Amino acid sequence: MRIVLASASPRRRELLEQIGITFEVQVSEVEEKISTDVPCYLVQSLSRQKAEAVFGGLAGLAEEVLVIGADTVVSCDGRILGKPKSGEQAEEMLRLLQGRSHEVYTGVTLLHRSAGETADASSIQGKSFYECTKVRFFPMSGEEIREYVATGDSLDKAGAYGIQGFCARYISGIEGDYNNVVGLPVGRLYQEMREWL
Amino acid sequence: MRIVLASASPRRRELLEQIGITFEVQVSEVEEKISTDVPCYLVQSLSRQKAEAVFGGLAGLAEEVLVIGADTVVSCDGRILGKPKSGEQAEEMLRLLQGRSHEVYTGVTLLHRSAGETADASSIQGKSFYECTKVRFFPMSGEEIREYVATGDSLDKAGAYGIQGFCARYISGIEGDYNNVVGLPVGRLYQEMREWL
Repeated sequence: MRIVLASASPRRRELLEQIGITFEVQVSEVEEKISTDVPCYLVQSLSRQKAEAVFGGLAGLAEEVLVIGADTVVSCDGRILGKPKSGEQAEEMLRLLQGRSHEVYTGVTLLHRSAGETADASSIQGKSFYECTKVRFFPMSGEEIREYVATGDSLDKAGAYGIQGFCARYISGIEGDYNNVVGLPVGRLYQEMREWL
Repeated sequence: MRIVLASASPRRRELLEQIGITFEVQVSEVEEKISTDVPCYLVQSLSRQKAEAVFGGLAGLAEEVLVIGADTVVSCDGRILGKPKSGEQAEEMLRLLQGRSHEVYTGVTLLHRSAGETADASSIQGKSFYECTKVRFFPMSGEEIREYVATGDSLDKAGAYGIQGFCARYISGIEGDYNNVVGLPVGRLYQEMREWL
């Protein structure tokens, strides 16, 4: 079976490698359509859009194919935080997150086609799910926030922090899957793949 | 200040590097004295023994010194699991842990001496603490356990698994600090150092 990860994130790639899955990466530009502000629906919808864009490009293949799409957002106080667009916005996000807890949602969509099936839409099997992890921050001073943003670690990450880097010094604990916060809930993903395929 | 990590674990070293601490590694052979079977006391006691062994060797220094010792065990059903001594023992531990939750305890001891102080015992400032993280495993089949132990990842790890490796496919979630399971609760450690020094 050909397994395709529909994500450009180096962290998602590392996580999938870590659990021993053989796969390739393909990314299609998607104009993300946001139709809900409920985090668990939003991330599933965006993960499906990413997976579908890549799946469509594989229509000509006779092989069995599985495409994995994923999307991650941070939710705090009813606000949904994606990737910050500037250092200033990153500081603003961290001022919101410090000293309290928030939720990280990652949605995953699996799209599957068996070998030899025709490539019409009716032959697509799809499944979406999400995981939510609660993350607690220690308090951060204004200086600590500026120092962290200056490391450059914030800019490509939802909520302006990477749990797996320097920022670990400000994290007191989590409830749920750690890898879900990094960007891909590989425990749940492996179990879903095992059960479903 | 000279910061010394009294642990040979490459994972603890990576975690301390990750949060931007400059330190060196020194390890002294300790004959571990086990005086309790209460996990939270045990790991603090063992972390102190490791820190003291290294601290003693630094008695001649005029500099300010901070030594960090750490010890990690897994606790499940009243049993304390250290590192397995064989593949068979690793399989036995994983059969116990699969499909349920257990606790991981890491104890940390900080020993500090200010610059210019004489090296007599009365001038040592010490502090020990621990963190406990609950870890939930998905069910693992006998074949999956054998396959995982065959990767060799089990043998140098308390409880016979590494949360940060291949085994992530079997972990459904945690409650507490992830890095505490890896071997060093760097969030709490950073906060304790900041407050105390």
